[in-house]
Amino acid sequence: MKNELQRAKKILAQINELAAISEDSNGITRLFGSPAFLEGSNKVLQWMKQAGFDSRIDNIGNVRGRLLSKNATAKTLVIASHIDTVRNAGRFDGPLGVLMGLDIVEQLFQSGKVLPFHIELIAFSDEEGVRFHTTYLGSKVVVGSFEKRLLQKKDENGIVLQEAIVQMKGNPNQLAADAIAAENWLGYFEIHIEQGPVLYENNIPVGIVTAIAGQKRAEIIFKGTAGHAGTVPVHMRRDALCCAAEFILETEKLALNNKITATVGKLNITNAASNTIPGKVTCSLDLRSADEAKATAAYEQLKNTCITVCSKRNIVPEWKLVQQTAPVFCDKDLTVLLTQAVKDAGYQPVEMISGAGHDAVAISAVSPVAMLFVRCFKGISHNPLEDVELKDMAAAIKVSDNFIYQLIHSRMA
Amino acid sequence: MKNELQRAKKILAQINELAAISEDSNGITRLFGSPAFLEGSNKVLQWMKQAGFDSRIDNIGNVRGRLLSKNATAKTLVIASHIDTVRNAGRFDGPLGVLMGLDIVEQLFQSGKVLPFHIELIAFSDEEGVRFHTTYLGSKVVVGSFEKRLLQKKDENGIVLQEAIVQMKGNPNQLAADAIAAENWLGYFEIHIEQGPVLYENNIPVGIVTAIAGQKRAEIIFKGTAGHAGTVPVHMRRDALCCAAEFILETEKLALNNKITATVGKLNITNAASNTIPGKVTCSLDLRSADEAKATAAYEQLKNTCITVCSKRNIVPEWKLVQQTAPVFCDKDLTVLLTQAVKDAGYQPVEMISGAGHDAVAISAVSPVAMLFVRCFKGISHNPLEDVELKDMAAAIKVSDNFIYQLIHSRMA
Repeated sequence: MKNELQRAKKILAQINELAAISEDSNGITRLFGSPAFLEGSNKVLQWMKQAGFDSRIDNIGNVRGRLLSKNATAKTLVIASHIDTVRNAGRFDGPLGVLMGLDIVEQLFQSGKVLPFHIELIAFSDEEGVRFHTTYLGSKVVVGSFEKRLLQKKDENGIVLQEAIVQMKGNPNQLAADAIAAENWLGYFEIHIEQGPVLYENNIPVGIVTAIAGQKRAEIIFKGTAGHAGTVPVHMRRDALCCAAEFILETEKLALNNKITATVGKLNITNAASNTIPGKVTCSLDLRSADEAKATAAYEQLKNTCITVCSKRNIVPEWKLVQQTAPVFCDKDLTVLLTQAVKDAGYQPVEMISGAGHDAVAISAVSPVAMLFVRCFKGISHNPLEDVELKDMAAAIKVSDNFIYQLIHSRMA
Repeated sequence: MKNELQRAKKILAQINELAAISEDSNGITRLFGSPAFLEGSNKVLQWMKQAGFDSRIDNIGNVRGRLLSKNATAKTLVIASHIDTVRNAGRFDGPLGVLMGLDIVEQLFQSGKVLPFHIELIAFSDEEGVRFHTTYLGSKVVVGSFEKRLLQKKDENGIVLQEAIVQMKGNPNQLAADAIAAENWLGYFEIHIEQGPVLYENNIPVGIVTAIAGQKRAEIIFKGTAGHAGTVPVHMRRDALCCAAEFILETEKLALNNKITATVGKLNITNAASNTIPGKVTCSLDLRSADEAKATAAYEQLKNTCITVCSKRNIVPEWKLVQQTAPVFCDKDLTVLLTQAVKDAGYQPVEMISGAGHDAVAISAVSPVAMLFVRCFKGISHNPLEDVELKDMAAAIKVSDNFIYQLIHSRMA
């Protein structure tokens, strides 16, 4: 592990150097296309060039470096993550995968290993989607699934994406030229912090992602009757908040019983006052599972629960499906290799579902995907407290090295 | 009832005339001291003068008309309610009692009845307390309990009460002169809409108020851990909203079991987002009862429940008592007379607790008080839909006539 620990230290130094580039002075914020984002991208570009890769920034702002196989018609393995951030972000969400990928490919390059496929290292420009309320702008361009209508999306200053691309010295008419043709993908590999507490709580350094959960989002309105908190006896009320509270606890119970993820994250009482009985409550529901049938069953069951709870209390429910995405599955063959790589590195292979979305969702449309999660401190993410231990980075390096070598060998055979 | 119905029609016409005077064009809003408020006050002053009373507007803006006993040293019975309103108010909350009082005293005056006590009719200027976030400014002046520090209270435009009084042509240094000395009070009688559904649901026109509930208000903070709604499994969460939901339902249960009034009217999730597990929830608790021991027991029980619910979920609670007022009891002797008056009018006497505060709270410091509630449509109040039927107004007139006559006879004997 000594060698991997030294490599982890170098990677951490780069992560810290990148984290120091921010729109604000005492946090980490690099939204797509901002001056700090461009400065960060250029830094990553320099690092790729220093490593000896044929590197460039493409029209959507992805930083891309290629290590070519001597076989010109070979397919391409993409190793990637993102370098845009949320506001007041942590250091590791995105950059960990980019800089660990850079180190692994650099080591491979220096080893002089014969490659049966090209490797392309990519730092995606827009995974978080904060500025334009989008997702996966960078990986969509690489996949060739970028929808032109997105160019008209506005940021909060009224700047449209098309204009933002021009300001970044990209050409919005040339995005299609930056795609890797579907037939040329060998696979996709991403290293990312878990952003959850499962590895941390179970004291495991790395996890094998088998799927990215599908998601259903609903908005639910509970309509009762507002009234004076002093004059309406409790048994005569149609209290929308009590009804919502019952629904929230039923949701939690169902999630626990069905091992599904369900969250009521927003709750708003219309015209709330301490001396007014809540007459109208609006809340959000976020439901996730890699098992679509299970998610659908849970969703329908909660809809029924909502009706039951409401009718008991003479409350009128309104249920609106706001968004739904299907789960995405990691590739079985790549995952078998990754599992072997974990075992060979001396760790217990632990399979996990990613509850958060990743660029792999967009990539999976054209390519087999694999993902490795790295334990992060207490599962904290999107927060300056985000942290990863050096020994876990070293473990991920060892596993990733094994994975790439096994993939090379499997394709040489 | 025919006569009373005709009187009710006249009163309703006046209520409607007063309701047409508003700060906004399509609602009813007459906050203390506003031009609409002053116009309304002057209208009431004219009506008092037309009825033949010695009338004036005092320094805090109360409209006051006196009908004197020939016994110059007699005590005073005050019949009153208020004419200020909340924003977007109903027509009856306040004006019903003022104009019904005016009619009753006018009839008494016209009857030539010999009075063993003076009667003072008062339209209080500030019961709702919307403008200066106060309560009972008008009745506090009449009682002599007005605290000078209140003169420095600011409205949302930065105008202090002292200045507002001057703008209303009052003299803030002469408020004490407007008090009725404690030894001169015979009693206080107020007619008011119930503002709750009890009379409406039970099909009863009027109710006898035996007490005004005391109130305890608390602010409760539930501190858990915010997290990503996709990545933290439900069993590993410290979800502050689920904890608050459990507390809300326990509060409702306790209220139902103990026949006490308890309401969570406000609930705020810090940094709420549909994909974020609520980490911090702040909510209000409003607890009311005429039985102070019961209220205290319920309050302590809920505080314990909060601790139990939180410790089970590893949530840190913060509990802050925001406000508490003791219950106020109506005078036994006056209430016996009022009960007899209800019976004599042919109605079933029904005793009630007022969950809302009224000027009687301030008055009770110096005088025996009695209150008559009138049924209102579905219990709706502080709302343009507030409504009272003519036949219920007629019932209240009949009861009030009886009450005043019985009080006169009891004091003649």
